[in-house]
Order: sequence, then C-alpha cells, then structure tokens
Amino acid sequence: MFKKIPGGITAPKGYKAAGVKAGLKKSGKLDLAVIYSTTPASVAAVFTTNTMAAAPVIVSRQAIQNGTASAVVVNSGCANACTGPQGLKDAQAMAHITAQLLDIDDREVIVSSTGIIGVSLPMDKIKDGIKRAVGQLDEQGYDSATTAIMTTDTFSKSCAYEFELGGVPVRIAGIAKGSGMIHPNMATMLCFITTDAAIAPPVLQQALTDAVNVSFNMISVDGDSSTNDMTSVLANGLAGNTLIDSVDCQDYTILTAALTEVCIYLAKQVVRDGEGATKFLEITVQGAQDDVDAKKAVMAIAKSPLVKTAFFGEDANWGRILCAAGYSEATLDPEKISLTIGDVPIVKHGMGVQFDEKALKAIMSQQDITVTVDLGLGEGSATMWTCDFSYEYVKINGEYHT
Amino acid sequence: MFKKIPGGITAPKGYKAAGVKAGLKKSGKLDLAVIYSTTPASVAAVFTTNTMAAAPVIVSRQAIQNGTASAVVVNSGCANACTGPQGLKDAQAMAHITAQLLDIDDREVIVSSTGIIGVSLPMDKIKDGIKRAVGQLDEQGYDSATTAIMTTDTFSKSCAYEFELGGVPVRIAGIAKGSGMIHPNMATMLCFITTDAAIAPPVLQQALTDAVNVSFNMISVDGDSSTNDMTSVLANGLAGNTLIDSVDCQDYTILTAALTEVCIYLAKQVVRDGEGATKFLEITVQGAQDDVDAKKAVMAIAKSPLVKTAFFGEDANWGRILCAAGYSEATLDPEKISLTIGDVPIVKHGMGVQFDEKALKAIMSQQDITVTVDLGLGEGSATMWTCDFSYEYVKINGEYHT
Repeated sequence: MFKKIPGGITAPKGYKAAGVKAGLKKSGKLDLAVIYSTTPASVAAVFTTNTMAAAPVIVSRQAIQNGTASAVVVNSGCANACTGPQGLKDAQAMAHITAQLLDIDDREVIVSSTGIIGVSLPMDKIKDGIKRAVGQLDEQGYDSATTAIMTTDTFSKSCAYEFELGGVPVRIAGIAKGSGMIHPNMATMLCFITTDAAIAPPVLQQALTDAVNVSFNMISVDGDSSTNDMTSVLANGLAGNTLIDSVDCQDYTILTAALTEVCIYLAKQVVRDGEGATKFLEITVQGAQDDVDAKKAVMAIAKSPLVKTAFFGEDANWGRILCAAGYSEATLDPEKISLTIGDVPIVKHGMGVQFDEKALKAIMSQQDITVTVDLGLGEGSATMWTCDFSYEYVKINGEYHT
Repeated sequence: MFKKIPGGITAPKGYKAAGVKAGLKKSGKLDLAVIYSTTPASVAAVFTTNTMAAAPVIVSRQAIQNGTASAVVVNSGCANACTGPQGLKDAQAMAHITAQLLDIDDREVIVSSTGIIGVSLPMDKIKDGIKRAVGQLDEQGYDSATTAIMTTDTFSKSCAYEFELGGVPVRIAGIAKGSGMIHPNMATMLCFITTDAAIAPPVLQQALTDAVNVSFNMISVDGDSSTNDMTSVLANGLAGNTLIDSVDCQDYTILTAALTEVCIYLAKQVVRDGEGATKFLEITVQGAQDDVDAKKAVMAIAKSPLVKTAFFGEDANWGRILCAAGYSEATLDPEKISLTIGDVPIVKHGMGVQFDEKALKAIMSQQDITVTVDLGLGEGSATMWTCDFSYEYVKINGEYHT
C-alpha cells in the first residue's frame, strides 16, 4: 500500500532542506538544519509533557496555534533547556532570523533544539548557521538535514513513502533522531515529517496523535519525556488531493496509516540505535482485560532493567518477565498467564514448562527477539519495542560529560 | 536515644535463631534460617504488592491474620514463586514442619523464600534443613540466621538497639537481605525484626507500616515489588513494659521511632550493597507543594538510569536531575527550582550558576553524596536513598543465569 521511495524529507512536492556546520558541536560535524515548504503548510505537532519544557518547545507550541507553518529550524549540540528568560529570547530569535530570511511570519517557524541541557545558545553561531542553511536550501538537501539533527545517534534515520489518495499520488517522509533507549524520552527524541497531502490542521493533529501513540509512545514511558521532545508534521497540499477536512473519510484513514507507517519505522530505528543496544526486542502483551491493561503490562516488562540485562546475557530469565507484569498494576491471574519467546512456549498458566533448550538458545542468540505474554483474560493487546541493556549503555552515559 | 547493642536478631529477650546448610544453594552456603520466640509474640508484616505474589507470601499473609506468631522460617536459593498449586502446598508444608517441631500451631509460623523464580522447592532438603535448624536454635544463633537469608548480598545486614519505655529497658533488632538496587523491589528484599516490647498487634501493624514508608519504601518504587518481598516484626512483650495498646501514647511514639531507626539502618545497608554500586546517594526534594509531590519528584530522580550513570561517571550532569523532576508529575515551576550537590549550589531558579568546579569535583569523587533539590513552592519534603549504576550492575544481572 505504501511504496518506499528515495529522497528522504524532501521527497514530497514543494520541500527543500539543508544542514550546515554552525560550530555548535565540538566535533565540528553538521549541527543546524532548516526544512522549508515553499507554500504554507498545515501543521501539527506533539510535544514533551515534561514540566521543564525547553525554550524551543514553548516557542513551537505557540507557533502551531494558528495551524500553518512553512519552516522548521533545528540545532543539535545545545538543548537551550533550563536557560531561563534568555533561553526563551534565543528560541524566539531563531524563529525570527529564519522567518526574515524566508520572508515569512515568525509564527510560521517551528524551532527545535537538542543537546546539552543548561547551556545558552551561542547566538552568533546560530545566526550565521541559519543564514547559510537558508542559502543552501535545496530539493536534494535531505541528507545533510538528516545528519545535522543527530547527537549520540550512530546512524541517521529517514524514510519516504508514496501512496494514493483518490487516485492522486501523495508522498510522505520523515527524519528522526534519538538513541537514549532506557528512558528514550529522557534523551531527546526529535522527528520531523513532511507530506504534500492536503489536510486541514485539526484533522492532521488527530492523525499525528494517533500515529505517535502506537509508535514513539510505544518505545517510551508514558508521561516520561525529555525537556525537548517533539514530533511535527507539515502538510502543504501540493499533491493536489481533495482536502481531508474530516476524520470520517477513507482518505483520512489512509493518510493516518501512512503517517503511522513513517512513525513506526522511525521509532524502530531509534530503538535499533539504542545506546549500547545489542538486541532488538518486540514485546507483545495479549489476552489482557483491555488495551489499557495490556499497555501497562508491556511497559513494565520493556522498562525493566532486570529483563533488559537478562536479554543482554542471552538468558531466558522468565521469572523477571512475569515479575514485571505482576507489579505493572495490570489485572492478571497468576494461574492464567503464559509466555512465549520466539516460537518457544516457556510458561503456561503461570508455571514453567519443559521446553527445547537448544531451540530457545538459538532464539536468544539472535539480534531480533520477539516476546509474547498472554494474560488469558480478554482481547486487549499492546506491542512495544525496546533493546537490551549492556555495558556499553553504562559507558556511554557515564562518560557523556557536561 | 537508641543505644546500639551487640547480639543481632536474638538480642531482645526470649528469641533464638539458627541458620543451616540445607543444600538449596549450589555454592553450599547457609540457606535456611529459623527465628523463634519462646513465648507467642504480637506480629505485624508488610508484604509485596506484586500480583504474582509467591506462595510463601500468600501463606504468611494468612498466618498473621490472628495477630500472633512464634516463628519465622526462611530459605534462600529458591523463591517458590510461579510454582502453582504445588508451591502453595510446599509453603504450607514449611510452616507445618516448623510448627510440629516447635509444638506450636501452623498459623504461628511466618514462611519466607528468596532466590530463583519458577523452580519448586526440594522439599526433602527443606524438611531436613528445618529439622536441623530447629535443633540448633540458640540465643547466640543470630549470625548464622543473618547469613542464611542472603542471596546476591555481599555482606550481611543486621542491627540491634536498646532504649526505655516507661523506665523499662526494651530491645529491638532486625536483619535484612537484598541488593538488587535499580528496582530494589524486583530483587527480593526481606527484613525480619524482633523486639521484646509489649504491644498489641493492630498498633504494631501501624507502627511497622509507618516505619516502612520512610525506609524500605524510600529505596524503592512505590507499587513496584518483587514476588517475595516481606518485612515482619515479632513483639513478645518479655521486656515487661506496659502494653502499648493505642497509637495515642508516648510509648507508641518511642517504639515507632525505634522501629524506624532499625528499618532506615537496614534499608541504607541494602542500598550500600546495591548490585555493582560504587556510590551511596542521599537525595532530598524539599520546598515541594506537599510531601506527596516531594516523593514523586525524589523517586523520579532516584530511579533515573541517566542520573545514576552520571554519578557513576562522577559527572554533575544536573540537566538530567532537573529533567527527571520535570517528568515526575510533581507540581513545579521551572523558574523556582534550585539544586545543590553536597554543599555546592549548582542551579538557582532554574538556571545553572557559576560554581567552584574544584569543590564539586571533590564531592563527586566521594563515595557518599547528598543531592538536594528545592522546588521553592512550599513545605513538602522527602528523602530517598539510592546508588549509582555501574558496569558491574549489568555484569551481575546479565550473568545471573536461570
């Protein structure tokens, strides 16, 4: 249904992008990106719920109120968080500088930052960087923009798809950054999506919220968010499809599915790049009383350091998995719970069963492992993606100095 | 007020204890203990809230219903959790065997197990072990009992105090085990307390609950509990003080303070023995709107793997501390929050301040570090004890094989 295409964030019609070296990263790597829609786009975004929300989050929350935007300006290397009134002025200035250069209103610009907390932005470098990025905006500029938003990421994350709405070809694309996986929302997760679909802002917001709930929110702890997290989508309508102005139509369903495809793809990429990750775990809780309970249980399991270190050690320590389900506050009956790792049944009705140890060992030694917990109570289910917990995680986070 | 005395769990009048090698641990170490009060004692206990509660927890919950008990039987090496109906029978049998040997009712026995989940108890070994332990019960047997409840602990945890109630000398003592520190309640935490104070069961239960709330519950996640966690107290009245039968008297206040002293001492010992711990962190949130908010904030900070790895790296990464407070759901105003590490102010009113880097470095290199977050909003406060997060933690939990 959704065909993968090249071209990244600039694959949809009417988008340009660029990434430059503004000098914010000590490493001298790309650290500032601008994404630009040549025509005003419908905009929707999901922001961190952290009370200590960074200045760019506050500015961008304001910016999307009117429902349209034309540009995104992002820097890495400095989060502009916990920077007080000056931080707010700096984030506003980032929007203003970008807007002036593009001859648009300040409120047409989404501002985003990621990097170290508590340090003010070097505004001279930012100003110069934005100037150069706007000067280099290009329909082929997706690669440098994708790279410029990275921090501890070990690879860039990008995808683009083509599909049809009422016979009209439509494109959607996204880039993301993030690799702090134990509590992904504590490390900043940024995602920027572009599409040339025509869709009204409130409807786009609903579609994005739905897509994020089954993707980025399923690689993280509900309510746990970094100071800078943000996912935004611009939809400039240049595909020429009939405007989607209601959630009650097939086109809305298709576009939401496409958005979800992009978000799940990028969310999984973030997990695969988890700090120090050696395993990619897909954990499903099914048979729960309802979806809410399933989500509670799957989150407790996926967050558990004891479960994660067991997978790192390639040990099917199923007691830890059941224990996490047990304290998750999900309704469960110890005599009905079952557990399968890969395709090997490990627990049936709350008790360990004889299993093929060789087959299980083979599964545990693979990089991708699926874990299925069946609560045996109802129809609720939820899937979460996570990674294991290795020496490398401790190393990365113990040595990432302020 | 509370004088430290030797003699451990058998220091109060009328208690005997013993620990033996029942053969449950592959290492051949002590793995079964019996604690016995020569006269029936008032009993109170706090159990895990985990839905997957182990068989011994279910049996002990029942046992304390009548308010008195005379013995505790504990084994390490096998948790008797996720063992189905057979597990329940085995836990009941542990109580029955102990009761018969001591000529008391089955319901006078508290049963407790810790160790690997999902494996049934080898009842022949258990029976033989209990027999030998009861045969060796001694007023000097505290040391072997303290050692026999250990699993991954690297040192045994015990304390005893003497104080006065209405001029009468009273003693209280406790032993504990536990060292899985990231989510301490996921690894089993056991604590057994004895006192010769005279106190009615419901009043004793209230005192224990209050003591646990500011000690063991402050080294853990509220609601997160292993399948086997348990803290119990026996009070046999042999000190001869006037029976405490109400919470509205000075003696109640004094005894609760003594219980709290025991619990905090042992809770801190558990943290110091945290798996792979190199630092002991005392984190206080003050100036919160109320104590509930303070607890939310301090728990988020103390649980954060990013905060814990930063302390392992001896890096004062204060952004991570504020970030954790920010997602804790505690009410806070980013412009009023302040942070002090040791005695060095790091953040004032939400912004980093210039600090003496040398002084801070000296503090971060110490083993014991205090962290104080002031929300600047009210009078609420809460203190939590935790440890850092090291390579060793991953090693211990990655290599602890089923």
